[in-house]
This record gives sequence, structure tokens and C-alpha cells, in this order.
Amino acid sequence: MDLGMTERVKPLVETVRRMIEDEIAPLDAEFHAEVGKHPKGRFHHTARQLEILDGLKAKAKARDLWNFWLTGSDRGYGLSTVEYAYLAEEMGKVSIAAEVFNCNAPDTGNMEVLERYGEQWMKDRWLAPLLEGEIRSAYVMTEPGLASSDAAQLAFEAKRDGDDFVLNGEKWWISGAGDPRCALYILMACTDPDAPKHNRHTMFVLDPATPGIEVLRPMEVFGQDDAPHGHMHIRFTDVRVSAKNIVLGEGRGFEVAQGRLGPGRIHHCMRAIGQAEKALEMMCRRGLSREAFGKRIIDLGANYDIIANARMEIEMARLLCLKAAWMMDTAGVRAAQPWISKIKVVAPLMAGKVIDEAMQLHGAAGISQDFDLAHMWTHVRTLRFADGPDAVHRRQVARAELRKYSNEGA
Amino acid sequence: MDLGMTERVKPLVETVRRMIEDEIAPLDAEFHAEVGKHPKGRFHHTARQLEILDGLKAKAKARDLWNFWLTGSDRGYGLSTVEYAYLAEEMGKVSIAAEVFNCNAPDTGNMEVLERYGEQWMKDRWLAPLLEGEIRSAYVMTEPGLASSDAAQLAFEAKRDGDDFVLNGEKWWISGAGDPRCALYILMACTDPDAPKHNRHTMFVLDPATPGIEVLRPMEVFGQDDAPHGHMHIRFTDVRVSAKNIVLGEGRGFEVAQGRLGPGRIHHCMRAIGQAEKALEMMCRRGLSREAFGKRIIDLGANYDIIANARMEIEMARLLCLKAAWMMDTAGVRAAQPWISKIKVVAPLMAGKVIDEAMQLHGAAGISQDFDLAHMWTHVRTLRFADGPDAVHRRQVARAELRKYSNEGA
Amino acid sequence: MDLGMTERVKPLVETVRRMIEDEIAPLDAEFHAEVGKHPKGRFHHTARQLEILDGLKAKAKARDLWNFWLTGSDRGYGLSTVEYAYLAEEMGKVSIAAEVFNCNAPDTGNMEVLERYGEQWMKDRWLAPLLEGEIRSAYVMTEPGLASSDAAQLAFEAKRDGDDFVLNGEKWWISGAGDPRCALYILMACTDPDAPKHNRHTMFVLDPATPGIEVLRPMEVFGQDDAPHGHMHIRFTDVRVSAKNIVLGEGRGFEVAQGRLGPGRIHHCMRAIGQAEKALEMMCRRGLSREAFGKRIIDLGANYDIIANARMEIEMARLLCLKAAWMMDTAGVRAAQPWISKIKVVAPLMAGKVIDEAMQLHGAAGISQDFDLAHMWTHVRTLRFADGPDAVHRRQVARAELRKYSNEGA
Amino acid sequence: MDLGMTERVKPLVETVRRMIEDEIAPLDAEFHAEVGKHPKGRFHHTARQLEILDGLKAKAKARDLWNFWLTGSDRGYGLSTVEYAYLAEEMGKVSIAAEVFNCNAPDTGNMEVLERYGEQWMKDRWLAPLLEGEIRSAYVMTEPGLASSDAAQLAFEAKRDGDDFVLNGEKWWISGAGDPRCALYILMACTDPDAPKHNRHTMFVLDPATPGIEVLRPMEVFGQDDAPHGHMHIRFTDVRVSAKNIVLGEGRGFEVAQGRLGPGRIHHCMRAIGQAEKALEMMCRRGLSREAFGKRIIDLGANYDIIANARMEIEMARLLCLKAAWMMDTAGVRAAQPWISKIKVVAPLMAGKVIDEAMQLHGAAGISQDFDLAHMWTHVRTLRFADGPDAVHRRQVARAELRKYSNEGA
Repeated sequence: MDLGMTERVKPLVETVRRMIEDEIAPLDAEFHAEVGKHPKGRFHHTARQLEILDGLKAKAKARDLWNFWLTGSDRGYGLSTVEYAYLAEEMGKVSIAAEVFNCNAPDTGNMEVLERYGEQWMKDRWLAPLLEGEIRSAYVMTEPGLASSDAAQLAFEAKRDGDDFVLNGEKWWISGAGDPRCALYILMACTDPDAPKHNRHTMFVLDPATPGIEVLRPMEVFGQDDAPHGHMHIRFTDVRVSAKNIVLGEGRGFEVAQGRLGPGRIHHCMRAIGQAEKALEMMCRRGLSREAFGKRIIDLGANYDIIANARMEIEMARLLCLKAAWMMDTAGVRAAQPWISKIKVVAPLMAGKVIDEAMQLHGAAGISQDFDLAHMWTHVRTLRFADGPDAVHRRQVARAELRKYSNEGA
Repeated sequence: MDLGMTERVKPLVETVRRMIEDEIAPLDAEFHAEVGKHPKGRFHHTARQLEILDGLKAKAKARDLWNFWLTGSDRGYGLSTVEYAYLAEEMGKVSIAAEVFNCNAPDTGNMEVLERYGEQWMKDRWLAPLLEGEIRSAYVMTEPGLASSDAAQLAFEAKRDGDDFVLNGEKWWISGAGDPRCALYILMACTDPDAPKHNRHTMFVLDPATPGIEVLRPMEVFGQDDAPHGHMHIRFTDVRVSAKNIVLGEGRGFEVAQGRLGPGRIHHCMRAIGQAEKALEMMCRRGLSREAFGKRIIDLGANYDIIANARMEIEMARLLCLKAAWMMDTAGVRAAQPWISKIKVVAPLMAGKVIDEAMQLHGAAGISQDFDLAHMWTHVRTLRFADGPDAVHRRQVARAELRKYSNEGA
Repeated sequence: MDLGMTERVKPLVETVRRMIEDEIAPLDAEFHAEVGKHPKGRFHHTARQLEILDGLKAKAKARDLWNFWLTGSDRGYGLSTVEYAYLAEEMGKVSIAAEVFNCNAPDTGNMEVLERYGEQWMKDRWLAPLLEGEIRSAYVMTEPGLASSDAAQLAFEAKRDGDDFVLNGEKWWISGAGDPRCALYILMACTDPDAPKHNRHTMFVLDPATPGIEVLRPMEVFGQDDAPHGHMHIRFTDVRVSAKNIVLGEGRGFEVAQGRLGPGRIHHCMRAIGQAEKALEMMCRRGLSREAFGKRIIDLGANYDIIANARMEIEMARLLCLKAAWMMDTAGVRAAQPWISKIKVVAPLMAGKVIDEAMQLHGAAGISQDFDLAHMWTHVRTLRFADGPDAVHRRQVARAELRKYSNEGA
Repeated sequence: MDLGMTERVKPLVETVRRMIEDEIAPLDAEFHAEVGKHPKGRFHHTARQLEILDGLKAKAKARDLWNFWLTGSDRGYGLSTVEYAYLAEEMGKVSIAAEVFNCNAPDTGNMEVLERYGEQWMKDRWLAPLLEGEIRSAYVMTEPGLASSDAAQLAFEAKRDGDDFVLNGEKWWISGAGDPRCALYILMACTDPDAPKHNRHTMFVLDPATPGIEVLRPMEVFGQDDAPHGHMHIRFTDVRVSAKNIVLGEGRGFEVAQGRLGPGRIHHCMRAIGQAEKALEMMCRRGLSREAFGKRIIDLGANYDIIANARMEIEMARLLCLKAAWMMDTAGVRAAQPWISKIKVVAPLMAGKVIDEAMQLHGAAGISQDFDLAHMWTHVRTLRFADGPDAVHRRQVARAELRKYSNEGA
């Protein structure tokens, strides 16, 4: 169970870290400061934003720092998930970094769906440009009005009409659907409410420009709309899509969703660990450089304990994340499921806690626009819902545990 | 130690609760939806906002529901702090409610300063209209660039020049300074950096329109600017203010600040407890009304325990708050100080935890604009800094404890 | 809601505190050091132990410091439960103190049963000498082999045979049954397993010397047998008891058990709060008097925060306990039930935490026989089971909360 | 960073696990039940106890399951610390198991001292029979009356007198010194109180039968004396020992102590993780097999979450422990120090928490003699002091963290 950095990935991590620190981080703040300056609104990139993104992406691609996430595959780097974890952690430290290397959610998950389950024409139309970073995509699953964590409940309707399906209903928290470059929806719809629980839904691919699709509003995360990426609330009215656009087969939406979620979940965790590392570093630097009551802040109160606890919790979460990655590499996504559930609970909670302590040590500045901490915190807070709330994952972990004693009635 | 609702205050609480639920709450969302619609920017009230506020305030005043906060005084209601606690808790549940009853921070604290330490002309010019709810005010203390929790470090300069003082420096997190109706700054400046620690500073009253004052930007709380109230970052360049504008006396700024802080701190806590109550109610209702995996959400996972813990923690925090209030009523603000420190640590942490659980049970909706929870959470998070960070208050509590053993070397 | 010390009880608290500190505490260690010195075994008092107990009890009685627990009654002091709380807290600080004032469990609960539900002959035979502190008693409810927290499951059998009942089965954790002075069992038995859930059981009074009763062993609490009091495991084989020994009526055992539990639960909590206070005092004194790494221990690490947190949590638990007491005084035990559940969860957890921190600050000495802390900790740990485990009480609290929304399906 | 079970160690783990389950566990309870039956007292083995121990040890030795702890050495198995971790975890599950395989504290640490720093005659006299499991030993460091966690304070005096040293003072918590087979003390004494902090002390080897040594009493752990092993309080009065008995050199006691502590600390942690695993297993089995309120206990309250949290925390602690072991293997004990500190804080806290939850789910039985849980809990509680209290280790971790920023004033 080798959880360390391989010799192969070590220089890559160093290169990526350096590019993030030296070239991406300095432009990140500028990118965000541009938000809202486009005359048409917040969900449009300004020319400068596109220049920043495209410039950095071109550099990354030219240096062959691209599509690392395509693990265990001939395409891309052929990294293992464990190797990717070290890269993803670095990318977590600056908000636009993952996109620069074409490793950002939800595109990676969507590419995975196309790669694994898509027909050739789907790959040609969407996977190819996604792999090139030319378009963006969205994953359209969550619905208002019901607890989407129990996916069997999803009620968004797709009704067959000849060779087509007609879509009606609302979806929300559709991340990335605000991005004007978004050219693909992968959408889960209920095609047979009376079928057995896991055969009710079907996965479609469709163009966001299809008539009948209306973006109602961005959902806000603690008041932030994360423009221009966004988490959109969308209404579908009599949206017509061909049966050819079905992925894998009618009634197999659940299967596709399951296959998609594993890697996506763990990638979020890897980046969250990077954010916790960054917060701890900020906390140490701030505590060492400021004074109150005649002492360095670091020497006041319980700050040594706070730092020690943060360090211990980060290390443990990272090791757990690496083990889950190793399980994916060696035993496959399905067998790794309870491990993914574990890290999915642990990493966001841990990162939230470390970032919260870092905010507190910074004083009120810590929750302001002057530091990344507040944005990092709200982001990791969303991860406690994304891809299943903590409660659902804890239940999975407990069930896997109790299954060991199944002869005894579990 | 009577911590209950007195017979006198009981009908008052009921009346206030009813007005908040029936008349204020329905307009609260509309008030916030108006933010940013004024053509000149977010820090201007729209006509509709003023209509809402002024209409509600007029009603409250007409019903003699006004200035409850003026405890232990002939003016106002003459309520005790304990009695006020029950009212403030209700006001905490809807964001504009406190202002409707002229009980909102930072005005109450500023009125307290004027009432207690102000000269007659100051009272005539500012206290009178504040008591009538005609103007707003700001308390100008915190500085960027240093740990303001150690107030002795505050470096903002006021230099004597004849009968005037000349102010230079920056202040930030000046809550309420964004409000166009803000007509008074109470400002703490360093008049003698070489004096003993608690005699270095002087408190001034001044008009925000004084030349040389420039509002640089609103400080953001997790990305929210809380417009039109705001928490402003302000630069003072050669701002000239008469020595007559000194409150209490040169070098006595610390004394004024201390006197101001006690009541303000506890009022925040009372309202935070109201917010926790509201979050618990929302959590119960949501859990009872939604289903997943064939059960009501309330019946899943650890939700019963979460609700029980929330209920127990709210009750304990409320009792501690009432005891601190009772100490203020019976032993005075100074003697009540360690009690105020206790509740100042406890209430925001408790409320933050309860609101966080409520958000989690709501699913992603819980952190969105569709529920008040996210805004409530960010607000109580700021309280862990406001009027002294938790660490400083814990230190006060520990010192008070150890003082009991002072013969033994404490 | 007056939760303070009344004028009446204030001098009483002072007198009791002084007697505990000056007269009882110095003999407490000696009492415990005598355990096991009787040639017949640990569950026999040595002459010196009886001398200590009887001497102190005689003094207390002579000073009319006796039977404080008989709240709201003409007999005894006629204290309120709130008033009693302040006395019980003091008694919690030294292990034999409660018995000295005839206020110790399980006798107080048993006297309550006799007082409230007992026939005259039962009162004459057992209540009178219990009130005089001449005999001890035990409450015989918990059974091995099933989860006794669900009392409806209790299976210990009492079968009618003419005018008698014949008892068969095992009971364990029978506190006080080790005491040679124990002269009464109040025992809950299943008389009709097919009756509705709350009518299956009947409460009996009987003499521990009845033939067929065999004490199998003392149950150990973390290896301690708490001799000579003990928590005994007892086997009943064809024990014959008259139907006249039924309390209240056949099938009404549940009712008696419910009535008994309220006060007993809260008395434990009051004493637990006293133990937490004592632990905090020990922690402060130890931290002030020892040094390491060139500083007083109190000044190292997070100790200030630990002390502040302990102080805050003690205060909150005490207030909650007083409120529960006040509910009992003003609304009755039944209405106070959710409040008793709250403090029953909170107080032992809080005390356990504070004592644990005190142990840690004492170094290894803290868990040794040289300090009371280890014994205090194991005692409060048992309270998380006694009279219902935490989980059951949390469920009660949550249900009471959700009942508020019963129109909405709760 | 291979943290997995190597192919080499896998069958060994299986063999050890099987022997523990099948042969050791069934005798463990009997061994403990024998304690106190020897007519001379608790600190004597009964014939049956020796029969049990010697019988099992002979079997283990005959099967070459012996001295696994001697990692990275030609003697013994030549296992890595990582490999040993998997074995030690199994040994942690049954209290006498470690001794059966000659892997028990404090002997392993003492052997390490002799192996690394001892002269040939010391090795002949003590190391050889220790390696054969023929004698036991004790490590004599902690002193009453001062905070021994700051070892520089240790005041136990060794005064030179010609070729001898004369020892005077008291030591306590000397684990294993109760064992009648204990034939070696490794003792740290202050030989020069005026020397620089880390040169004041000297390490001696001596025979417990040396005149002037008096075992005063066993220190109790929550009332348990852990006989016949024991944690003794010992008085040394004019104990004469030759200068030849000095280990490594006068004034080099600190150096020896440092070298000894690393492996010992981590071995405790490995076993604690095994205890947590065992507690989790017990919790699952109990929860599945009992009912209350019409449901399996496992299905009540927050038990799924409790189990999930336990599983996640065990996994994380194990991975951290393995990483610390790997650091020791690859970078040496010195470089691994902050990692050892981390796991030294984490493992006992985690195990204590899991065992506590398991106790709670068992009802009162969980803290009784009927289950191992109470004894496991008190044992892991001592680990929060043993080899340095948590606070000291947290300080080490924080300092290592801050050292990264030393250019910035750390």
C-alpha cells in the first residue's frame, strides 16, 4: 500500500506547485475582482478574465500539464489516483488552478461519464473539446422540492414521444451552468416512475441551448453566487431531446450516476486538504507576525494546541484520502465506495474546522475579502452536501461495518 | 435571582413577537430584495426600503414599542436587563426587527455613551434624534494593521493643534457607517502614545460629513456587504475636530469604551439566542415535512440527538445570558464583566452550531438565499470577533477564576 | 423564576458546607481506607467505619441538618427543590457527606416511594427508621440479560400463589444492597407479561433476609466494588412474599417507578455539579502550585482556555439544573420530565469532562488513589447509565421538542 | 511510503491473531481471576498464573513467534516498524498477549536501552534473559512531588562516593516493579543539579534486591492496582550502586531516555488501536444482538453515526501510526519524533473515545467486570500521561510546525 509520492510524480508536483504559486495565484485575485464588470452581468466573462484563463491554460497545455485527472487511462498522463491526489491537493490552494490544468469539477466527472458510457458521436461532439478545455459542461441532477440525496425520489420528468423524450421540471444547484462556455448538460430524468427503484431514471446528454431551457437564477452560497461559474436554478419546459441522447440505456441512469460519483467525490476531498494546508500556513504566518498584549499572537491562549491539532487532523485526513485513492487504484471504484464515503465525511469537516480556526486567528480580517479564508470556508461547507450529505455517507460506512457481522443478523 | 419573564414584560413580549411575525417578517425579505436597486449603488436606500422601515418604525412608536434597551433608566421603559433579554431574543429572529423598535446596534451602545458621558450639547444634537430613530450612528474603533483586541495598541492619531485635534489614519469594520442616515461617529483615537496604557486614547464625537473623511470600501462578511448598513473601511486625512468634541476627557477613551461594551455585548448574545431558536424551529419543521429513503428526514440518522442537543444548548445559553443580565441589573456592569465574557463566548458558538445543523438538515437549500439560515450563520460568526474575540474573553474568565486563589500565587 | 439561593437557605448552605469541610472531609479518607479491613470481608463495616458514620450522623441530626431532601413536604425542612439543589451540590463534594445528612441515594428515592405510595404498615416498618437513618434500603429493578432502559422488557417473574407471590430471577446493579444495614428492597417484578406494556409490572417491598435471596457478587465500576455500599448482583429463587407487600396495586409498578425517578435523577445531577466544582478548584490549585519548563503549569498550553471552558460549562449546567428543580417545584414532576431529562444528559457529561481535564492537569497522580478525582470520575460515568442512559433521555427531549409541531405530523 | 502489510508479515499476523484468539484469550480471564489468590498477596503469581504464562510463552517460542519488536535488527525477526505495527495491534486486543510473545512494555524499551547503550556485562546479565523472557524489568524515572514531564526537573539524587554512587529519593508509577520476576531497574538519577539542563542526569542499571530499596505501595489506576505487574511507588534510602552500572556515561541520562522513548511510545499506540478495533467489534455485536423499544439497539438513536465515526477515526489513527512507524524505519527515531508525538496524542484519545462509546452501548455492563471494556479504557487513559502528557506532545508538534517559518521569527 504505497501512499507516498512516486518518483514519477514528484517533479510533476513540484512543477505544478511552482506554476500555481508563481503564475496562477498572482492572477487569481484579479480574475475574481473582474467578476461583475461585464456590462451584461455577472455571468459573463470579461475580456480580461478570458485572457487570464486562456493564457494560463495555453501555458499549462504547452508544458504538458494537462488532464492529470484521467487516471488509470492511456489518454492523459496515466497517473494513478494516488499520484493524482498530490497534484489535486496543490490545485486546491488557488481557486482557478484546477481549471488551468483542465482538472476542474464538474467537467472531470462529466468527461468520465462520456469516456466510460458515451457513444462515439457523444465523444466526438463533447468529450474531445472538453479534453481540450475548449468547452465547459454541467451535471444536472439535484431537484428543488425533494431530498435529492435519495436519488430514487428524483421526479423531473422525461416522457417518451415517438423517437424523442420531452423534459419538464426544475433542477437546481447546477454548478458550472452559469459559465457562458457551458456547452453540455448531462441530465438525469425520471423515465418510469413505476419501475423498480434503481431503474426509474435515465441519463441524457443535451445542449444547454435547446429550446425550453430557462436559467431562473443563481443559487447563492452564503450570499455568494460564484459567478461566472455559478450554481444555477433551471426550468425545463417541454424540452425535446432525441432518444439517441440517452447514455448507456433507458432506465440505467442510476448506474451512470454511481460510476460518475466516486472519482468526483475524492477529487473534492483532495483539494479540500490542500485548502486546509493553506489555511494552516496562513494561521502560522499571521500568528508569528502580529502582536497583542506584549506577545506574538501565536504565543497567546491555546494557539499552540490549535496548530498542533490542525496539523494532526490534516495528516490523518490526507492519509485516509490516499488510502481511498489506493483502494480505487487497486480494487476499483465499487470496492472503494465505503472508503470514498469515509473521506467524503472527513475531509470537508476537517478543512472547515482548520479554516475556521485560521479565520479566528486572523481577527475579523479573516472573514473579509482581504483573505481567501472566507471563500475557502464557504466552498468546503458546500462539500458537506455535494455528492451526498454527510449523513448519507455515514450511513454507508456504518452499513459496511455491520455487514461484517451479517451472520449475526446485521 | 429571578430570571423569569416578569408579569410586566410578558404581554410586551407577546405584543412584540406578534408584530415581528405578522408585520415585520413579511417585509424583511422584501427589504433585502431591494438592496442594490438604487441607481447610485448598494449603500443607498430605495424609496421602498425607506417606506418599509419608516412605516414600521412609526407603527412601533405609535404603539409605544420603542427604546426598550434603555434599561434601568427613567427614560424609555425602565425595563431591567433581564426583562429586555426576552424582548431582544424575539428581535433577533428577523434582521430588521431591532431597528423597527429602535433597539439596534451600534446605535444603542452609542446612545448609552452619550447618555452616560456626553455633554448637554452632544445630547441635544445627537442623542435626541437617535432616541427618536431619526438618525443613525457608528462606533469607530477597530483599525487595520494591528490586533485591535488589544485596544492599547490602537494607533490612529489625533494630534492637538490649538483648540482642535487633527485626525489621521484608517479605521475599518465600522458597522452602520454605510447607512446614508448615519449622522454621528464616536471615534477612539490615540492622543498620547507615551501615556500609561489606559490613558493613551481619547473618545471623540464627530459628523461623518467632516472634510477629510473618505469611505474606502465596505468590508465583506463571507462575501456579503450587509448593505445598506455596511461595515466600512474609512480613511481620515487631516480631519479637523474641535477639542469640545471630546467625550468625558482627554486620555479617558478607554474608560468610555469599557462602559460602552458591556450592554452591547450582551444584546448581541440575546439576539443570537433568538436566532438559534428560530433555526431549531426551522430544523424541526423541515425534518417533519420531508422524506427520504421511505422515512421522514427527522427519523433518519442522528437527527433526534441533534435536536435534543440543540434544545439543551439553547436552554443553557439562555439561562447563562439571563444570569449575566441579572448580574448587570443587581451588581453593575463592572461586576458583571466576567459573566458578560462567559455569555459572549458561549452564545455565538452555540448559535453557530445550531444554525449549522439546521443548514445541514435543509440540504443545500440551507445555505442558499431561500432560507435565512446562511445569513444568520454569517452574522453570528462575526460575533466571535465583535467586541473582543473569544480568546480574549476566555482569558478574562480564566483570570477571574484564578483570582479566587490569589493568596496562592495566582 | 427565582433560581437563586433564598435568604432562608443561605445560612443553611453555609452551615452544611462548613460541616462538610471541617468535620466530614477529614474523616472521608479514613472511612475509605478502612474498606476491606473487616475480617469477614469488604461488605462489612469495621467498628471504626460505623463510629465515623454514626458519630457524624448524630451530630448532623442534633444540629437539625437532616432530611433536607424531603422537599415540598411538611415533614423535614420543607425546602423547595431549588433550595435543596444548593445543599446537594455541597454534599456532592465528599463521598460520605450525603449519608451524614440522611440525603443519600437510593434511600431518598425509596423513602419517597413509601411516603407517596406506601401503606401505613410499610411506613411504620421502613419509612420511620429510614427517616431516622437507622436502616438502609435498595431499589431492585435492573436485570441482566436485557436492556433494562426499556423497562417494559423487564422479565423477572412474580407468580401469584394463593395470597403470596413467588419471585424468581436475577437482578443486578442493586446499589446499596451490599450494605449490611440494608433492611428493605423495593422490587419491580413482572406479574403479567401479557398485559399492556405499562401494566405488566408490580412493585413489592420485602426484607432482604427473606429466604431464597442470594447475593451473587458485587458489580464492579471500572474495577471498584464501592464496598461496603456495593452494586450487587442478586439471585431470587422461589422467594415468597405476601400480596400485602404490593405497593399501590398489582400492575402499577410502572407508575411507582415513574414517580420515583424524577427527584432521584436530579439529586444525582446536583451532586455531580458539586463534584465538577471541586475538580475545577483542584485544577486551579494544582496548576498554580507546580512548575514545568520554567513556568507555572497553569500558564502552559491551553490551560487558561480549559479553565474558562470548565467554568462556563459548570455555570450553564447548574442553571439548567436549577431550572429543572424550579419546574418540579412549580409545575410538578410530570411536567418537569423533559427538563429532568435535559439535566440528566448534561450534568454527568459536563462533570466527566471537567474531572477528566482536572485529572490530566494533575499528571498521573490525578488518576491514582492520592486524589479523589478518579473516584469522582468513575462515579459520574455511572450516572450516564443510572436512571436511564443518555440516549433514552435525548430521545425524550427530542420528542418533547417535536411535539410542538404535532399538527404538522410530529 | 508502503504502509500496507508486506507479503512477509501477512501470514505472521494471521498466525499471531489465531494464537491470540484461540489460545491466549481463553486463558486471559482466568489469569486475571487468579489475581489476589496467592496467600502472600496480590503481587505474587499463583501457580496457575505462572503455568498459564509459561505455558503460552513456551508455545510461542517453540513456534518462533518471539521478540517481534526487535525491528531493524539482525537479532529477532528483522521486521520493520511498519510490519511490527500490524502484529502489535493484534497483541493489544488481549491483555497478556504481548508478554506471551515477549513484546511487552516496559521490557522492550529496556532491552532496547541495553542493546543500544549497554556494556557487554550488562547485556550478559540482563539483556540475554530478557530476550529469553526469563526475567522482567522496570524503568525507573517518574518522581512524586514534581512535574516529571519536564524531565530536567527530576531531583532524585545519586551522589558519588568513591567508585560508587549513593541513591536517595522516591520514584513512582514504576510499571512492572510489582512483578516478582522483575530483576532489573533502569533508573534515571540526578548526578549534577548544576550542570546544563540536559547533562544533569545519569542512567543506572541495578538489581531491585539492592539494599535500601523499599516498595511503598502500588499506585492505583482508577482504583485498580494492575497486580501482579503493578505501578509501584518506591523509596530508595542510601542505595549503593557501582559507577560501573552507569549506562553510556555520567550526565548522559537524557540521551538514553530520548533514545528509549520513541519505540515505546509508538508500541503503546499500536496496541491502543487494536483495543479500539476490539471495542468497535464488541459494540457492533452487542448492538445487533439486543433489543429495546421494539428495535435492535443498533437501529436506535445515533448508533449508526457512532459506528461510522468510530470506523473513520480508527482508520485515520492507524494510518497515522503506520506513517510514524515508516518514518522511524526510513528516517530514524530522531527525525520521526514529531510524528511519534502526533500519534501519541491521537491514538489514546481516539481509543478512549471509541471504548467509551462501546461501554455506553453495552449499558452498565460495559463498565463492569463482565467485559474487558472498562479495563481497556482505564489502560488507554494512562497512555495520555505515559511517556509524556498530551500537552507536551502537542507543544512538540506545534513547534515543529512553526519551525518551518523560522526565517519569519518562529
